[in-house]
Amino acid sequence: MFNLDSRLQNDTYFVANLPTSQLLLMNDNQYPWFILVPRVADISETCQLSDTQQASVLAESNALSQALLDIYMPTTLNVAALGNVVRQLHIHHIARFEQDKAWPAPVWGHLPTVAYSEAAAQILINQILAHEKIKELL
Amino acid sequence: MFNLDSRLQNDTYFVANLPTSQLLLMNDNQYPWFILVPRVADISETCQLSDTQQASVLAESNALSQALLDIYMPTTLNVAALGNVVRQLHIHHIARFEQDKAWPAPVWGHLPTVAYSEAAAQILINQILAHEKIKELL
Repeated sequence: MFNLDSRLQNDTYFVANLPTSQLLLMNDNQYPWFILVPRVADISETCQLSDTQQASVLAESNALSQALLDIYMPTTLNVAALGNVVRQLHIHHIARFEQDKAWPAPVWGHLPTVAYSEAAAQILINQILAHEKIKELL
Repeated sequence: MFNLDSRLQNDTYFVANLPTSQLLLMNDNQYPWFILVPRVADISETCQLSDTQQASVLAESNALSQALLDIYMPTTLNVAALGNVVRQLHIHHIARFEQDKAWPAPVWGHLPTVAYSEAAAQILINQILAHEKIKELL
């Protein structure tokens, strides 16, 4: 029985259920930062997913990555599964820019988060949901 | 024509050529820290690899992850493609412990690296090469 970790729930906006993962928007307006959480109970590492689940999550990660590249045209993407604070498997996808506030450091633990207004969050959610690669997964 | 980025070359020990990636050991004795670098020219994001290349890199990442879990029994793995400093696609696999020096922060840019002695690096290289899942890829 999958339940989203309470810290992830508190720190994010729900965007959509993709075939295997929940797509979330991190509530931090300093970077376009989305998170995939495979809806599989008691998993903390990608290598613990089945081959089928991994293939599905990889397709979701590709779609999300391509959408972030197309929409935000970042310098690079940071794609990462860490688990140091929240053990439930979740895969960060962050569009990073040479001009962003944490650059070139990683974003985790670098600066306090800055919450979106509801309206501003909704803009990013609508942008990502409108991308062709994401629409194919809905 | 693939050429390993010079900074990656300077910061690591070569471990092995897996089917698609070079396996490297980061020369930092503070954490068991390995890196996969797909031998594909001019790629900076996983989503830019072909489906076949991605499937192969995923199998290599799984094998490396399982080996790190089995050998070091860490609290969690940090698996991450960042690209903030070195743009060539490279995927970090780091065994993290609640007792390590950077915990719970990410390791990148947190503390100066501490080089292995040649003998100490060779011990980690031999350990990883002896793991069943890595041996299957050699």
